[in-house]
Amino acid sequence: MSAAPASLCQLPPYHQHPRCCLFTKLSVLTMPEYKLIYFNSRGRAELARWICAYGNIPYTDERIPKADWPSRKPGISGGKLPVLMVDGKQLPESLAIARYLAKQAKLVPDDDFDAAVCDALVDTLSEMMVQVYKTMFAAAGDEEEKKKTYKEELYPNVIAPVLVRLNERLSKREWFIVDKVTWADLAIGLMFGGLKMKQPEILKGFPAVEAHVNKILQIPKIKQWNDSQGPEETF
Amino acid sequence: MSAAPASLCQLPPYHQHPRCCLFTKLSVLTMPEYKLIYFNSRGRAELARWICAYGNIPYTDERIPKADWPSRKPGISGGKLPVLMVDGKQLPESLAIARYLAKQAKLVPDDDFDAAVCDALVDTLSEMMVQVYKTMFAAAGDEEEKKKTYKEELYPNVIAPVLVRLNERLSKREWFIVDKVTWADLAIGLMFGGLKMKQPEILKGFPAVEAHVNKILQIPKIKQWNDSQGPEETF
Repeated sequence: MSAAPASLCQLPPYHQHPRCCLFTKLSVLTMPEYKLIYFNSRGRAELARWICAYGNIPYTDERIPKADWPSRKPGISGGKLPVLMVDGKQLPESLAIARYLAKQAKLVPDDDFDAAVCDALVDTLSEMMVQVYKTMFAAAGDEEEKKKTYKEELYPNVIAPVLVRLNERLSKREWFIVDKVTWADLAIGLMFGGLKMKQPEILKGFPAVEAHVNKILQIPKIKQWNDSQGPEETF
Repeated sequence: MSAAPASLCQLPPYHQHPRCCLFTKLSVLTMPEYKLIYFNSRGRAELARWICAYGNIPYTDERIPKADWPSRKPGISGGKLPVLMVDGKQLPESLAIARYLAKQAKLVPDDDFDAAVCDALVDTLSEMMVQVYKTMFAAAGDEEEKKKTYKEELYPNVIAPVLVRLNERLSKREWFIVDKVTWADLAIGLMFGGLKMKQPEILKGFPAVEAHVNKILQIPKIKQWNDSQGPEETF
């Protein structure tokens, strides 16, 4: 997707300016029709939603109520969500979806090595989140036991090593890689921002990461998206 | 990496032809210096090694003996292998490494959606292998119990659903996507070829997948690589 030139975009009100309207309409006409199918929760779909919000990518945000999932599941290739429908074709796997949309939103660096470093960070954060979900946010299990596991295993062995490296890197740079925001920066804001809501002390001792998360959360399109969201369905 | 034009490559013997030599030398000169660091096993590094073999990408294949890992670990950012050194810079995460090398070997489709479908398949296969390794190839655990888990859970719930979809797709196409081999095809050959060595019956009932795996294993550069490999260190 091509962004409208800044000189046009800055003319308020954006959506009422005739040239902007034409430009936006033309961009949208050449774009595939997207539908993101997931549950009514952030989970594995939220990075894709943030990327669409940041990149002005129009899409249908279909949220399947938990009760409807058994009847919908057979129609989903692979039987797992999220799935992105691209002109009616199914694309599964949350990170493949996010990377694809990030390319359309110009959130992937042009250089192959820089793009690979983004991929590696997103994979690392995703693996960390899998471990966090498995132990902390599982429906079953004793709450005291979970707190102990978090303190003695999850935080020191899984979360802190990522924070140490990230803090060192971000204390020397404005963005994770290259000189502008990429989908890796959005992933940092989303994942550590989400963890901070559950564990308010988690970024203590990592000021560069904390500042980065706050910076991402204050990006106007991200803030506007987050502010617009209602309560999630819990599982 | 640019491949030498077919008309030159077909002049035997390839490496003695002066124009081919010059071309190859120039390609190598503009390429970063690669070192792939892993253990002496296929594991999470083998897809990258196959991609390098297929794409004639020169690299140092460093294999750390298990006994040396504790002393080497602190020097590896993130403390996990594999890592690809690219002109001295570390790139972690096996799939980020494989995707990066696949781009250099022209094994990633040009179209964004096709590339994303490859990413999604590789992620699906990788998640399947994580589950397989966790239950089947773990050092601890009763062998009879493992067989039961494989038969009653792993095969019907994790492996077979992937095989069903893949068999349907491959029965209608020569390659997984587009009209030539991609890194997704190599991943199919590597992962199901590896599983078949452990479970010879695994592809029974999925003739299109079996034929595809055999086709990949017979690609001359892949066959040559596999034939050149000695025994792995077991963990």
